[in-house]
Amino acid sequence: MAARPELLMRLRIEKPIIQAGMAGGITTPELVAEVTKAGGLGTIGAGYMHAENLRSAIQRVKKQTEGAFAVNVFVPETPEVVPGDVQKANEKLSLIHKKLNLDSAPVPEKLPSFFEEQLEVVIEEKIEICSFTFGLPSPEQMKRLKAHGVFLIGTATSVEEAARNEQAGMDAVVAQGSEAGGHRGTFAESFEKAMVGTMALVPQVVDKVDIPVIAAGGIMDGRGVLAAHALGAEAVQMGTAFLTCRESGAPPAHQQAVLTSKETDTAITTIFSGKPARGITNKMMAWMEALDHKWPPYPVQNMLTQPIRREAARQNESAFMSLWSGQGTRLSVQEPAAAMIKRLMEEAEEAWESL
Amino acid sequence: MAARPELLMRLRIEKPIIQAGMAGGITTPELVAEVTKAGGLGTIGAGYMHAENLRSAIQRVKKQTEGAFAVNVFVPETPEVVPGDVQKANEKLSLIHKKLNLDSAPVPEKLPSFFEEQLEVVIEEKIEICSFTFGLPSPEQMKRLKAHGVFLIGTATSVEEAARNEQAGMDAVVAQGSEAGGHRGTFAESFEKAMVGTMALVPQVVDKVDIPVIAAGGIMDGRGVLAAHALGAEAVQMGTAFLTCRESGAPPAHQQAVLTSKETDTAITTIFSGKPARGITNKMMAWMEALDHKWPPYPVQNMLTQPIRREAARQNESAFMSLWSGQGTRLSVQEPAAAMIKRLMEEAEEAWESL
Repeated sequence: MAARPELLMRLRIEKPIIQAGMAGGITTPELVAEVTKAGGLGTIGAGYMHAENLRSAIQRVKKQTEGAFAVNVFVPETPEVVPGDVQKANEKLSLIHKKLNLDSAPVPEKLPSFFEEQLEVVIEEKIEICSFTFGLPSPEQMKRLKAHGVFLIGTATSVEEAARNEQAGMDAVVAQGSEAGGHRGTFAESFEKAMVGTMALVPQVVDKVDIPVIAAGGIMDGRGVLAAHALGAEAVQMGTAFLTCRESGAPPAHQQAVLTSKETDTAITTIFSGKPARGITNKMMAWMEALDHKWPPYPVQNMLTQPIRREAARQNESAFMSLWSGQGTRLSVQEPAAAMIKRLMEEAEEAWESL
Repeated sequence: MAARPELLMRLRIEKPIIQAGMAGGITTPELVAEVTKAGGLGTIGAGYMHAENLRSAIQRVKKQTEGAFAVNVFVPETPEVVPGDVQKANEKLSLIHKKLNLDSAPVPEKLPSFFEEQLEVVIEEKIEICSFTFGLPSPEQMKRLKAHGVFLIGTATSVEEAARNEQAGMDAVVAQGSEAGGHRGTFAESFEKAMVGTMALVPQVVDKVDIPVIAAGGIMDGRGVLAAHALGAEAVQMGTAFLTCRESGAPPAHQQAVLTSKETDTAITTIFSGKPARGITNKMMAWMEALDHKWPPYPVQNMLTQPIRREAARQNESAFMSLWSGQGTRLSVQEPAAAMIKRLMEEAEEAWESL
């Protein structure tokens, strides 16, 4: 295959593979560093990280590599916290608390706000690449990051969202197809309407914007990498594939669930965080969906279920975790990240030769 | 690109492009013949056709080409017709009848059964290729078709469904991703679980079965054709792309709706036929969905809405048609089928050169 040097040169990477910034402890500094050392782009999933934790994660990656890596942050939302709603939700969740021997249920009085501080850490630590989920930073934030030379990558689940990313000044955009695991990046559409498959989404986004497009959603091996290029993407972003890497921080039970699942085992749910996300259906998801309760909005609901999921991780109890996963589960492999990236490129080459 | 001769030789085609057997008058004999003459595989969408209409369509195609073409049929279901349910549904639909000045509402006493007769026509007319939607024919039917040398293509929306197609003796299988327009081919899964995007579905199916896999869903141009090959498919099946061809029998208002839609404008609905299908949301769909009525099952509901859709087609009134469409709408083009196939191959070549 001919090189596609433009985006890769800007990202200082040799292989068109970006490890997605999965939040919640999956992207250990080891995973990020190994991906970067293997020629891809590692990403710290800083979504829910306090600034000082982010700084420490960054420094741990830096100790392992001088290569470029990215930080992924969540553009914040600040709905009102209605105490009655929180209490009602916690009452329902108390059944799960009991199961896990968790005594206290959190009642957030105000929402954490660490986005500004995260961006300051990105600037102070001279992070070269910052990616965003759930929308666009303010024009001032964009300007400040750009002034410090940070390469900015947005997320889109529709053509319109991609265009808005470009207009806001993003340097590249991830087109996230409906196959993708974890949170939908949707911010300007109803999420149902923006459930567009990768095969349909990527070329339509490529035709609309002039910035490089990164394909995401259902890409799990070298065939997917090649297919994404055929559709006009300049790189791919892969989450689920890296989730089962040896260096992944995902609990073993989560990894096992992905490794043993079928492509029909995932569903979109809002019960974990208040925002739609794709995961493998488990007990907690099925039970909470069946209650048909109006849970608090993101990020309140996320704060309410976080202690449960953290304790479930500690106990390695998959029934009460958020088992984020895309639809390519049957293609998941447990191996070191460096071996995975090598394999992906070999498979892509092989697929190309057979065209 | 290197040739992938195996499947294409069996299908007697030069280009790995199958025009999907869209039912309801879209696949005119002219469309089918033009696709075949251009080196692809035309398909008569015989889903709802009486045997004699199918025979006449076949004969009209044969007058235009000696090339191979396919017939697509629907594997039948025979739920009980509950007269009370039918009456209730018709009462609800009477509002639309009035809008369109349609006076009589059909009350089916028994379900039409033309599947066996369709298969006889396929055999008598020496049709070389027959494709199936909504499941598997009986072992006897499979055996009889095979004895007459008919090449059999099944439809799958999951890996398991693909495996069942192979076990039943299909010679090839269409892996239909969630992007696809029109009816979901799902027959062995809950349809929600089998909403798997093409990018994720195709390689997982390819890994499972030994028969050739045909990719469908969101493929609208040469980039999609190449991407499908990268994923391991030996050919593509395209519906929406051919729906706006000059030779298409889709009402002009339907074609116009596809040509002017965004990728976020479609949704899955069961209101038209009783089975889930993807179409552009219009007045009839929105109104019937909002009623939240339990409509009769397929194919009863299809019979109830058919006169409405037929009259809407006559009046070219898109508000009351089923505007079947996949998610690749922005890539749709109005041109002769032969020009489209030429363009698809040129685009695929171009995309390949830029890899």
